[in-house]
Amino acid sequence: MRRVFILSDHTGLTAEAMARALLAQFPEEAYEIQRHPFLDSAAKVEEVAGLIAREEAPLVFSSLVDPAARKRLRELCGERLFDFFETYTPRLEALLGRKARPVTGSLHGIANHGLYQERIRALDFSMVHDDGAVTRNYENADVVLVGVSRSGKTPTCLYLALHHGLQAANYPLVEEDLESPELPTALAPHRHKLVGLTIDPVQLQRIRIQRRSSGRYAALEQCQWEVRQAEALFRRHRIPTIDTTAISIEEIAAHITSEILERPRRRDSS
Amino acid sequence: MRRVFILSDHTGLTAEAMARALLAQFPEEAYEIQRHPFLDSAAKVEEVAGLIAREEAPLVFSSLVDPAARKRLRELCGERLFDFFETYTPRLEALLGRKARPVTGSLHGIANHGLYQERIRALDFSMVHDDGAVTRNYENADVVLVGVSRSGKTPTCLYLALHHGLQAANYPLVEEDLESPELPTALAPHRHKLVGLTIDPVQLQRIRIQRRSSGRYAALEQCQWEVRQAEALFRRHRIPTIDTTAISIEEIAAHITSEILERPRRRDSS
Repeated sequence: MRRVFILSDHTGLTAEAMARALLAQFPEEAYEIQRHPFLDSAAKVEEVAGLIAREEAPLVFSSLVDPAARKRLRELCGERLFDFFETYTPRLEALLGRKARPVTGSLHGIANHGLYQERIRALDFSMVHDDGAVTRNYENADVVLVGVSRSGKTPTCLYLALHHGLQAANYPLVEEDLESPELPTALAPHRHKLVGLTIDPVQLQRIRIQRRSSGRYAALEQCQWEVRQAEALFRRHRIPTIDTTAISIEEIAAHITSEILERPRRRDSS
Repeated sequence: MRRVFILSDHTGLTAEAMARALLAQFPEEAYEIQRHPFLDSAAKVEEVAGLIAREEAPLVFSSLVDPAARKRLRELCGERLFDFFETYTPRLEALLGRKARPVTGSLHGIANHGLYQERIRALDFSMVHDDGAVTRNYENADVVLVGVSRSGKTPTCLYLALHHGLQAANYPLVEEDLESPELPTALAPHRHKLVGLTIDPVQLQRIRIQRRSSGRYAALEQCQWEVRQAEALFRRHRIPTIDTTAISIEEIAAHITSEILERPRRRDSS
Protein backbone atom coordinates (compact mmCIF):
# COMPACT_ATOMS: atom_id res chain seq x y z
CA MET A 1 0.00 0.00 0.00
CA ARG A 2 1.72 3.12 -1.20
CA ARG A 3 1.17 6.29 0.78
CA VAL A 4 0.08 9.31 -1.25
CA PHE A 5 0.05 12.78 0.28
CA ILE A 6 -2.04 15.63 -1.06
CA LEU A 7 -0.93 19.00 0.25
CA SER A 8 -2.82 22.25 -0.18
CA ASP A 9 -3.21 25.65 1.43
CA HIS A 10 -6.87 25.44 0.45
CA THR A 11 -9.28 22.48 0.35
CA GLY A 12 -6.95 20.31 -1.73
CA LEU A 13 -9.91 18.88 -3.64
CA THR A 14 -8.53 19.85 -7.04
CA ALA A 15 -5.07 18.51 -6.26
CA GLU A 16 -6.61 15.26 -5.03
CA ALA A 17 -8.75 14.89 -8.15
CA MET A 18 -5.69 15.50 -10.36
CA ALA A 19 -3.64 13.01 -8.39
CA ARG A 20 -6.38 10.38 -8.60
CA ALA A 21 -6.67 10.86 -12.36
CA LEU A 22 -2.91 10.45 -12.78
CA LEU A 23 -2.73 7.42 -10.50
CA ALA A 24 -5.67 5.78 -12.25
CA GLN A 25 -3.22 5.09 -15.05
CA PHE A 26 -1.49 2.60 -12.75
CA PRO A 27 -4.38 0.38 -11.68
CA GLU A 28 -2.08 -2.39 -10.42
CA GLU A 29 -0.88 -0.21 -7.57
CA ALA A 30 -2.72 0.13 -4.27
CA TYR A 31 -2.74 3.59 -2.73
CA GLU A 32 -3.64 5.11 0.56
CA ILE A 33 -4.41 8.75 -0.11
CA GLN A 34 -4.11 11.30 2.71
CA ARG A 35 -5.33 14.80 2.03
CA HIS A 36 -3.85 17.58 4.14
CA PRO A 37 -5.79 20.79 3.45
CA PHE A 38 -5.44 24.31 4.81
CA LEU A 39 -1.65 24.16 5.25
CA ASP A 40 -1.40 27.90 5.59
CA SER A 41 1.58 28.24 7.92
CA ALA A 42 5.18 27.03 8.04
CA ALA A 43 4.39 25.11 11.23
CA LYS A 44 1.57 23.15 9.58
CA VAL A 45 3.74 22.36 6.57
CA GLU A 46 6.51 21.18 8.90
CA GLU A 47 4.10 18.88 10.70
CA VAL A 48 3.13 17.17 7.45
CA ALA A 49 6.78 17.08 6.36
CA GLY A 50 7.40 15.00 9.48
CA LEU A 51 4.70 12.52 8.41
CA ILE A 52 6.15 12.31 4.89
CA ALA A 53 9.66 11.74 6.20
CA ARG A 54 8.46 8.64 8.04
CA GLU A 55 7.21 6.92 4.88
CA GLU A 56 9.31 4.68 2.71
CA ALA A 57 8.44 5.66 -0.86
CA PRO A 58 5.58 8.13 -0.71
CA LEU A 59 4.20 10.17 -3.56
CA VAL A 60 3.49 13.81 -2.77
CA PHE A 61 1.14 15.99 -4.81
CA SER A 62 1.08 19.66 -3.93
CA SER A 63 -0.94 22.69 -4.87
CA LEU A 64 0.79 24.80 -2.23
CA VAL A 65 1.50 28.31 -3.43
CA ASP A 66 3.92 29.62 -0.82
CA PRO A 67 7.47 29.49 -2.31
CA ALA A 68 9.19 28.70 1.00
CA ALA A 69 6.89 25.75 1.69
CA ARG A 70 7.43 24.40 -1.80
CA LYS A 71 11.21 24.71 -1.49
CA ARG A 72 11.11 22.81 1.80
CA LEU A 73 9.10 20.00 0.21
CA ARG A 74 11.33 19.83 -2.83
CA GLU A 75 14.35 19.35 -0.57
CA LEU A 76 12.52 16.68 1.40
CA CYS A 77 10.89 14.77 -1.47
CA GLY A 78 12.99 15.40 -4.57
CA GLU A 79 11.50 13.63 -7.58
CA ARG A 80 8.65 12.31 -5.45
CA LEU A 81 7.09 15.76 -5.24
CA PHE A 82 4.56 16.64 -7.93
CA ASP A 83 4.20 20.39 -7.57
CA PHE A 84 1.31 21.55 -9.74
CA PHE A 85 2.30 25.20 -9.59
CA GLU A 86 5.99 24.75 -10.25
CA THR A 87 5.40 22.78 -13.42
CA TYR A 88 3.23 25.19 -15.32
CA THR A 89 3.86 28.62 -13.90
CA PRO A 90 7.13 29.42 -15.74
CA ARG A 91 5.59 28.58 -19.10
CA LEU A 92 2.49 30.66 -18.34
CA GLU A 93 4.74 33.55 -17.33
CA ALA A 94 6.53 33.31 -20.67
CA LEU A 95 3.30 33.13 -22.66
CA LEU A 96 1.57 35.94 -20.80
CA GLY A 97 4.65 38.12 -20.48
CA ARG A 98 4.04 38.72 -16.75
CA LYS A 99 5.36 37.48 -13.44
CA ALA A 100 3.03 35.24 -11.47
CA ARG A 101 1.86 36.45 -8.09
CA PRO A 102 1.45 33.81 -5.42
CA VAL A 103 -2.28 33.83 -4.71
CA THR A 104 -3.47 31.23 -2.25
CA GLY A 105 -6.56 29.13 -2.68
CA SER A 106 -10.04 30.45 -3.27
CA LEU A 107 -10.39 30.23 -7.03
CA HIS A 108 -11.14 26.54 -7.03
CA GLY A 109 -14.43 24.92 -7.91
CA ILE A 110 -17.46 26.01 -5.98
CA ALA A 111 -15.47 28.73 -4.25
CA ASN A 112 -16.09 31.23 -7.03
CA HIS A 113 -17.49 33.95 -4.89
CA GLY A 114 -20.20 36.39 -5.89
CA LEU A 115 -22.02 33.37 -7.17
CA TYR A 116 -22.44 32.18 -3.61
CA GLN A 117 -25.77 33.87 -2.98
CA GLU A 118 -27.00 32.77 -6.37
CA ARG A 119 -26.20 29.17 -5.45
CA ILE A 120 -27.98 29.37 -2.14
CA ARG A 121 -31.02 30.85 -3.87
CA ALA A 122 -30.90 28.07 -6.46
CA LEU A 123 -30.66 25.49 -3.71
CA ASP A 124 -33.71 26.91 -1.95
CA PHE A 125 -35.62 26.73 -5.22
CA SER A 126 -34.51 23.19 -5.95
CA MET A 127 -35.44 21.94 -2.51
CA VAL A 128 -38.90 23.50 -2.64
CA HIS A 129 -39.46 22.09 -6.13
CA ASP A 130 -38.12 18.63 -5.37
CA ASP A 131 -40.15 15.58 -6.33
CA GLY A 132 -42.98 17.57 -7.88
CA ALA A 133 -43.88 18.95 -4.45
CA VAL A 134 -44.57 22.35 -5.99
CA THR A 135 -45.25 22.53 -9.72
CA ARG A 136 -46.00 26.23 -9.82
CA ASN A 137 -43.09 28.55 -10.61
CA TYR A 138 -41.68 26.34 -13.33
CA GLU A 139 -41.40 29.56 -15.33
CA ASN A 140 -38.61 30.49 -12.91
CA ALA A 141 -36.80 27.19 -13.32
CA ASP A 142 -33.68 26.95 -15.45
CA VAL A 143 -34.32 23.28 -15.98
CA VAL A 144 -36.94 20.72 -14.95
CA LEU A 145 -35.77 17.12 -14.68
CA VAL A 146 -38.39 14.51 -15.46
CA GLY A 147 -38.27 10.79 -14.80
CA VAL A 148 -39.70 7.88 -12.90
CA SER A 149 -39.12 7.54 -9.18
CA ARG A 150 -35.44 6.85 -8.34
CA SER A 151 -34.02 7.68 -11.74
CA GLY A 152 -31.58 10.21 -10.21
CA LYS A 153 -33.55 13.46 -10.35
CA THR A 154 -33.07 14.77 -6.82
CA PRO A 155 -29.30 14.44 -6.46
CA THR A 156 -28.82 15.89 -9.92
CA CYS A 157 -30.99 18.90 -9.11
CA LEU A 158 -29.14 19.59 -5.90
CA TYR A 159 -25.80 19.25 -7.65
CA LEU A 160 -26.88 21.65 -10.40
CA ALA A 161 -27.96 24.17 -7.76
CA LEU A 162 -24.91 23.82 -5.52
CA HIS A 163 -22.32 23.84 -8.29
CA HIS A 164 -23.87 25.79 -11.11
CA GLY A 165 -26.40 28.04 -9.40
CA LEU A 166 -29.17 26.61 -11.57
CA GLN A 167 -32.75 26.64 -10.35
CA ALA A 168 -33.43 23.00 -11.05
CA ALA A 169 -36.86 21.55 -10.36
CA ASN A 170 -37.81 17.93 -10.73
CA TYR A 171 -41.02 16.17 -11.56
CA PRO A 172 -41.61 12.46 -10.94
CA LEU A 173 -43.64 10.63 -13.57
CA VAL A 174 -46.35 8.69 -11.77
CA GLU A 175 -48.58 6.00 -13.28
CA GLU A 176 -51.21 8.45 -14.38
CA ASP A 177 -48.57 10.45 -16.31
CA LEU A 178 -47.12 7.30 -17.82
CA GLU A 179 -50.47 6.08 -19.11
CA SER A 180 -51.11 9.23 -21.12
CA PRO A 181 -49.49 10.10 -24.45
CA GLU A 182 -49.60 13.77 -23.44
CA LEU A 183 -47.16 15.60 -21.24
CA PRO A 184 -48.46 16.18 -17.71
CA THR A 185 -50.34 19.48 -17.48
CA ALA A 186 -47.73 21.05 -15.21
CA LEU A 187 -44.96 20.29 -17.71
CA ALA A 188 -46.58 21.04 -21.05
CA PRO A 189 -45.94 24.81 -21.05
CA HIS A 190 -42.26 24.23 -20.22
CA ARG A 191 -41.28 21.62 -22.76
CA HIS A 192 -38.13 23.54 -23.75
CA LYS A 193 -36.82 23.31 -20.16
CA LEU A 194 -37.37 19.59 -19.69
CA VAL A 195 -34.62 17.02 -19.47
CA GLY A 196 -35.59 13.36 -19.22
CA LEU A 197 -33.67 10.94 -17.04
CA THR A 198 -33.86 7.28 -17.81
CA ILE A 199 -32.25 4.20 -16.29
CA ASP A 200 -31.85 0.51 -16.90
CA PRO A 201 -34.93 -1.22 -15.37
CA VAL A 202 -32.83 -3.86 -13.59
CA GLN A 203 -30.72 -1.19 -11.95
CA LEU A 204 -33.90 0.73 -11.10
CA GLN A 205 -35.33 -2.34 -9.42
CA ARG A 206 -32.14 -2.80 -7.41
CA ILE A 207 -32.33 0.78 -6.16
CA ARG A 208 -36.01 0.54 -5.32
CA ILE A 209 -35.52 -2.69 -3.38
CA GLN A 210 -32.83 -0.97 -1.32
CA ARG A 211 -35.34 1.76 -0.47
CA ARG A 212 -38.56 0.01 0.31
CA SER A 213 -38.86 -3.65 1.02
CA SER A 214 -40.99 -5.02 -1.80
CA GLY A 215 -44.38 -4.71 -3.49
CA ARG A 216 -45.31 -3.69 -6.98
CA TYR A 217 -43.10 -0.56 -6.78
CA ALA A 218 -39.98 -2.72 -6.85
CA ALA A 219 -41.25 -5.46 -9.19
CA LEU A 220 -39.16 -5.87 -12.33
CA GLU A 221 -42.19 -5.79 -14.65
CA GLN A 222 -43.29 -2.53 -13.06
CA CYS A 223 -39.83 -0.98 -13.47
CA GLN A 224 -39.69 -2.16 -17.10
CA TRP A 225 -43.12 -0.76 -17.85
CA GLU A 226 -42.37 2.62 -16.24
CA VAL A 227 -39.06 3.04 -18.05
CA ARG A 228 -40.58 2.00 -21.38
CA GLN A 229 -43.45 4.45 -21.01
CA ALA A 230 -41.18 7.27 -19.83
CA GLU A 231 -38.79 6.80 -22.75
CA ALA A 232 -41.70 6.76 -25.20
CA LEU A 233 -42.98 10.01 -23.70
CA PHE A 234 -39.54 11.63 -24.01
CA ARG A 235 -39.25 10.54 -27.65
CA ARG A 236 -42.76 11.63 -28.54
CA HIS A 237 -42.19 15.12 -27.17
CA ARG A 238 -38.54 15.30 -28.27
CA ILE A 239 -37.23 15.80 -24.74
CA PRO A 240 -33.44 15.37 -24.53
CA THR A 241 -32.74 12.35 -22.39
CA ILE A 242 -29.82 11.10 -20.32
CA ASP A 243 -29.31 7.49 -19.27
CA THR A 244 -28.14 7.64 -15.66
CA THR A 245 -27.44 3.92 -15.28
CA ALA A 246 -23.66 3.93 -15.45
CA ILE A 247 -22.71 7.52 -14.80
CA SER A 248 -22.23 9.66 -11.72
CA ILE A 249 -24.22 12.68 -10.58
CA GLU A 250 -21.29 14.86 -11.61
CA GLU A 251 -21.39 13.43 -15.11
CA ILE A 252 -25.17 13.76 -15.46
CA ALA A 253 -24.85 17.40 -14.41
CA ALA A 254 -22.00 18.00 -16.85
CA HIS A 255 -24.06 16.57 -19.71
CA ILE A 256 -26.95 18.85 -18.80
CA THR A 257 -24.93 22.04 -18.47
CA SER A 258 -22.55 21.55 -21.35
CA GLU A 259 -24.66 19.84 -23.95
CA ILE A 260 -28.34 20.36 -23.32
CA LEU A 261 -28.51 23.85 -21.83
CA GLU A 262 -26.02 25.11 -24.40
CA ARG A 263 -28.26 24.24 -27.31
CA PRO A 264 -29.68 27.14 -29.30
CA ARG A 265 -33.31 26.35 -28.46
CA ARG A 266 -32.40 26.98 -24.83
CA ARG A 267 -30.85 30.33 -25.57
CA ASP A 268 -33.96 31.40 -27.42
CA SER A 269 -36.16 30.59 -24.52
CA SER A 270 -34.20 31.96 -21.61
CA MET B 1 -10.14 38.92 -23.29
CA ARG B 2 -7.99 35.85 -23.69
CA ARG B 3 -9.70 32.65 -24.74
CA VAL B 4 -8.95 29.63 -22.55
CA PHE B 5 -9.99 26.14 -23.66
CA ILE B 6 -10.45 23.25 -21.26
CA LEU B 7 -10.51 19.89 -23.01
CA SER B 8 -11.46 16.61 -21.41
CA ASP B 9 -12.78 13.19 -22.32
CA HIS B 10 -14.71 13.32 -19.05
CA THR B 11 -16.44 16.22 -17.26
CA GLY B 12 -13.36 18.47 -17.39
CA LEU B 13 -14.15 19.83 -13.93
CA THR B 14 -10.76 18.93 -12.49
CA ALA B 15 -8.89 20.36 -15.47
CA GLU B 16 -10.93 23.55 -15.22
CA ALA B 17 -10.25 23.90 -11.50
CA MET B 18 -6.51 23.39 -12.07
CA ALA B 19 -6.51 25.92 -14.90
CA ARG B 20 -8.37 28.48 -12.78
CA ALA B 21 -5.92 28.03 -9.91
CA LEU B 22 -2.96 28.53 -12.26
CA LEU B 23 -4.50 31.54 -13.98
CA ALA B 24 -5.40 33.14 -10.65
CA GLN B 25 -1.71 33.92 -10.39
CA PHE B 26 -2.17 36.43 -13.22
CA PRO B 27 -5.02 38.57 -11.91
CA GLU B 28 -4.36 41.38 -14.41
CA GLU B 29 -5.43 39.18 -17.30
CA ALA B 30 -9.06 38.78 -18.36
CA TYR B 31 -10.07 35.31 -19.45
CA GLU B 32 -12.98 33.70 -21.18
CA ILE B 33 -12.98 30.06 -20.19
CA GLN B 34 -14.69 27.50 -22.43
CA ARG B 35 -14.98 23.98 -21.12
CA HIS B 36 -15.36 21.22 -23.71
CA PRO B 37 -16.17 17.98 -21.88
CA PHE B 38 -16.78 14.44 -23.13
CA LEU B 39 -14.40 14.68 -26.12
CA ASP B 40 -14.37 10.94 -26.57
CA SER B 41 -13.89 10.64 -30.33
CA ALA B 42 -11.46 11.95 -32.91
CA ALA B 43 -14.30 13.81 -34.61
CA LYS B 44 -15.19 15.72 -31.44
CA VAL B 45 -11.55 16.60 -30.82
CA GLU B 46 -11.27 17.82 -34.40
CA GLU B 47 -14.29 20.05 -33.98
CA VAL B 48 -12.73 21.77 -30.96
CA ALA B 49 -9.38 21.97 -32.76
CA GLY B 50 -11.20 24.02 -35.38
CA LEU B 51 -12.39 26.46 -32.71
CA ILE B 52 -8.91 26.72 -31.22
CA ALA B 53 -7.35 27.39 -34.62
CA ARG B 54 -9.59 30.42 -35.06
CA GLU B 55 -8.28 32.15 -31.90
CA GLU B 56 -5.31 34.46 -31.82
CA ALA B 57 -3.39 33.49 -28.67
CA PRO B 58 -5.47 30.95 -26.79
CA LEU B 59 -4.39 28.88 -23.81
CA VAL B 60 -5.37 25.23 -23.92
CA PHE B 61 -5.55 23.01 -20.84
CA SER B 62 -6.13 19.34 -21.46
CA SER B 63 -6.82 16.26 -19.41
CA LEU B 64 -7.41 14.17 -22.52
CA VAL B 65 -5.97 10.69 -22.21
CA ASP B 66 -6.04 9.43 -25.80
CA PRO B 67 -2.48 9.67 -27.21
CA ALA B 68 -3.62 10.46 -30.76
CA ALA B 69 -5.81 13.35 -29.59
CA ARG B 70 -2.98 14.75 -27.49
CA LYS B 71 -0.53 14.53 -30.40
CA ARG B 72 -2.97 16.40 -32.63
CA LEU B 73 -3.33 19.16 -30.05
CA ARG B 74 0.40 19.41 -29.47
CA GLU B 75 0.93 19.95 -33.18
CA LEU B 76 -1.80 22.57 -33.26
CA CYS B 77 -1.01 24.45 -30.05
CA GLY B 78 2.69 23.89 -29.33
CA GLU B 79 3.71 25.67 -26.13
CA ARG B 80 0.14 26.90 -25.63
CA LEU B 81 -1.02 23.40 -24.73
CA PHE B 82 -0.92 22.48 -21.04
CA ASP B 83 -1.33 18.72 -21.07
CA PHE B 84 -1.83 17.52 -17.51
CA PHE B 85 -1.14 13.89 -18.34
CA GLU B 86 1.94 14.43 -20.47
CA THR B 87 3.69 16.42 -17.78
CA TYR B 88 3.55 13.97 -14.93
CA THR B 89 3.08 10.55 -16.42
CA PRO B 90 6.71 9.84 -17.41
CA ARG B 91 7.97 10.68 -13.93
CA LEU B 92 5.27 8.52 -12.33
CA GLU B 93 6.23 5.68 -14.65
CA ALA B 94 9.85 5.98 -13.54
CA LEU B 95 8.95 6.11 -9.84
CA LEU B 96 6.48 3.25 -9.97
CA GLY B 97 8.49 1.14 -12.40
CA ARG B 98 5.46 0.47 -14.62
CA LYS B 99 4.04 1.73 -17.89
CA ALA B 100 0.94 3.91 -17.61
CA ARG B 101 -2.24 2.63 -19.19
CA PRO B 102 -4.45 5.23 -20.80
CA VAL B 103 -7.62 5.09 -18.71
CA THR B 104 -10.26 7.63 -19.65
CA GLY B 105 -12.21 9.64 -17.13
CA SER B 106 -14.23 8.22 -14.30
CA LEU B 107 -11.83 8.45 -11.38
CA HIS B 108 -12.41 12.13 -10.80
CA GLY B 109 -14.19 13.64 -7.84
CA ILE B 110 -17.67 12.42 -7.14
CA ALA B 111 -17.39 9.76 -9.83
CA ASN B 112 -15.79 7.27 -7.49
CA HIS B 113 -18.22 4.46 -8.00
CA GLY B 114 -19.31 1.95 -5.41
CA LEU B 115 -19.77 4.95 -3.19
CA TYR B 116 -22.62 6.10 -5.39
CA GLN B 117 -25.34 4.29 -3.49
CA GLU B 118 -23.85 5.40 -0.21
CA ARG B 119 -24.08 9.00 -1.36
CA ILE B 120 -27.67 8.69 -2.45
CA ARG B 121 -28.53 7.13 0.89
CA ALA B 122 -26.73 9.95 2.68
CA LEU B 123 -28.60 12.51 0.61
CA ASP B 124 -31.93 10.95 1.50
CA PHE B 125 -30.98 11.12 5.14
CA SER B 126 -29.81 14.70 4.94
CA MET B 127 -32.96 15.87 3.19
CA VAL B 128 -35.24 14.18 5.70
CA HIS B 129 -33.21 15.62 8.57
CA ASP B 130 -32.93 19.12 7.15
CA ASP B 131 -33.78 22.09 9.32
CA GLY B 132 -34.64 20.04 12.37
CA ALA B 133 -37.64 18.57 10.55
CA VAL B 134 -36.92 15.18 12.06
CA THR B 135 -34.77 15.02 15.18
CA ARG B 136 -35.09 11.30 15.71
CA ASN B 137 -32.41 9.09 14.20
CA TYR B 138 -29.55 11.39 15.14
CA GLU B 139 -27.85 8.20 16.31
CA ASN B 140 -27.54 7.33 12.63
CA ALA B 141 -26.09 10.71 11.70
CA ASP B 142 -22.38 11.08 11.00
CA VAL B 143 -22.57 14.74 11.89
CA VAL B 144 -25.25 17.19 13.06
CA LEU B 145 -24.75 20.83 12.11
CA VAL B 146 -26.12 23.35 14.55
CA GLY B 147 -26.63 27.06 14.07
CA VAL B 148 -29.08 29.92 13.77
CA SER B 149 -31.33 30.23 10.74
CA ARG B 150 -29.34 31.03 7.56
CA SER B 151 -25.91 30.28 8.94
CA GLY B 152 -25.18 27.83 6.10
CA LYS B 153 -26.36 24.51 7.53
CA THR B 154 -28.47 23.18 4.68
CA PRO B 155 -26.07 23.65 1.76
CA THR B 156 -23.22 22.26 3.84
CA CYS B 157 -25.23 19.16 4.77
CA LEU B 158 -26.17 18.50 1.17
CA TYR B 159 -22.58 18.98 0.05
CA LEU B 160 -21.32 16.57 2.73
CA ALA B 161 -23.87 13.99 1.59
CA LEU B 162 -23.30 14.41 -2.15
CA HIS B 163 -19.52 14.52 -2.03
CA HIS B 164 -18.55 12.55 1.03
CA GLY B 165 -21.47 10.20 1.56
CA LEU B 166 -21.93 11.55 5.08
CA GLN B 167 -25.31 11.36 6.76
CA ALA B 168 -25.43 15.00 7.78
CA ALA B 169 -28.41 16.30 9.75
CA ASN B 170 -28.94 19.90 10.73
CA TYR B 171 -30.68 21.55 13.64
CA PRO B 172 -31.67 25.23 13.66
CA LEU B 173 -31.31 27.01 16.98
CA VAL B 174 -34.57 28.83 17.66
CA GLU B 175 -35.16 31.45 20.35
CA GLU B 176 -36.16 28.92 22.94
CA ASP B 177 -32.87 27.05 22.40
CA LEU B 178 -30.88 30.27 22.51
CA GLU B 179 -32.38 31.38 25.81
CA SER B 180 -31.29 28.24 27.62
CA PRO B 181 -27.77 27.45 28.83
CA GLU B 182 -28.45 23.78 28.12
CA LEU B 183 -28.21 21.99 24.82
CA PRO B 184 -31.61 21.34 23.23
CA THR B 185 -32.98 17.98 24.33
CA ALA B 186 -32.69 16.48 20.86
CA LEU B 187 -28.99 17.36 20.68
CA ALA B 188 -27.75 16.60 24.17
CA PRO B 189 -27.16 12.84 23.68
CA HIS B 190 -25.16 13.54 20.49
CA ARG B 191 -22.76 16.22 21.62
CA HIS B 192 -19.77 14.43 20.07
CA LYS B 193 -21.40 14.67 16.61
CA LEU B 194 -22.24 18.35 16.74
CA VAL B 195 -20.54 21.02 14.69
CA GLY B 196 -21.53 24.64 15.26
CA LEU B 197 -21.80 27.09 12.41
CA THR B 198 -21.52 30.77 13.15
CA ILE B 199 -21.55 33.87 10.98
CA ASP B 200 -20.96 37.60 11.19
CA PRO B 201 -24.28 39.20 12.32
CA VAL B 202 -24.14 41.89 9.62
CA GLN B 203 -23.71 39.27 6.91
CA LEU B 204 -26.49 37.24 8.53
CA GLN B 205 -28.81 40.23 8.41
CA ARG B 206 -27.98 40.78 4.73
CA ILE B 207 -28.86 37.17 3.93
CA ARG B 208 -32.08 37.28 5.93
CA ILE B 209 -33.22 40.48 4.26
CA GLN B 210 -32.71 38.83 0.88
CA ARG B 211 -34.98 36.00 2.02
CA ARG B 212 -37.87 37.65 3.75
CA SER B 213 -38.72 41.30 3.54
CA SER B 214 -38.28 42.61 7.06
CA GLY B 215 -39.48 42.20 10.64
CA ARG B 216 -37.61 41.18 13.74
CA TYR B 217 -36.11 38.14 12.00
CA ALA B 218 -33.93 40.42 9.88
CA ALA B 219 -33.26 43.14 12.47
CA LEU B 220 -29.58 43.66 13.22
CA GLU B 221 -30.07 43.49 17.00
CA GLN B 222 -31.87 40.18 16.62
CA CYS B 223 -29.07 38.77 14.43
CA GLN B 224 -26.45 39.99 16.90
CA TRP B 225 -28.29 38.47 19.85
CA GLU B 226 -28.80 35.10 18.14
CA VAL B 227 -25.17 34.82 17.06
CA ARG B 228 -23.92 35.84 20.51
CA GLN B 229 -26.14 33.29 22.24
CA ALA B 230 -25.26 30.54 19.76
CA GLU B 231 -21.53 31.13 20.14
CA ALA B 232 -21.86 31.09 23.93
CA LEU B 233 -23.71 27.79 23.70
CA PHE B 234 -21.00 26.28 21.47
CA ARG B 235 -18.26 27.43 23.85
CA ARG B 236 -20.08 26.22 26.95
CA HIS B 237 -20.52 22.73 25.53
CA ARG B 238 -17.17 22.69 23.73
CA ILE B 239 -18.69 22.21 20.30
CA PRO B 240 -16.18 22.77 17.48
CA THR B 241 -17.30 25.79 15.51
CA ILE B 242 -16.76 27.12 12.00
CA ASP B 243 -17.25 30.73 10.96
CA THR B 244 -18.97 30.59 7.58
CA THR B 245 -18.86 34.33 6.88
CA ALA B 246 -16.08 34.45 4.33
CA ILE B 247 -15.74 30.88 3.13
CA SER B 248 -17.51 28.73 0.57
CA ILE B 249 -19.62 25.64 1.12
CA GLU B 250 -16.75 23.58 -0.25
CA GLU B 251 -14.39 25.05 2.33
CA ILE B 252 -16.82 24.58 5.23
CA ALA B 253 -17.21 20.94 4.20
CA ALA B 254 -13.44 20.48 3.92
CA HIS B 255 -12.94 21.86 7.44
CA ILE B 256 -15.55 19.47 8.77
CA THR B 257 -14.24 16.36 7.03
CA SER B 258 -10.53 16.97 7.45
CA GLU B 259 -10.28 18.62 10.83
CA ILE B 260 -13.31 17.95 12.95
CA LEU B 261 -14.34 14.44 11.94
CA GLU B 262 -10.71 13.31 11.98
CA ARG B 263 -10.30 14.11 15.65
CA PRO B 264 -9.85 11.14 17.97
CA ARG B 265 -13.02 11.87 19.96
CA ARG B 266 -14.92 11.21 16.75
CA ARG B 267 -13.22 7.91 16.13
CA ASP B 268 -14.09 6.76 19.61
CA SER B 269 -17.72 7.42 19.09
CA SER B 270 -18.32 6.02 15.64
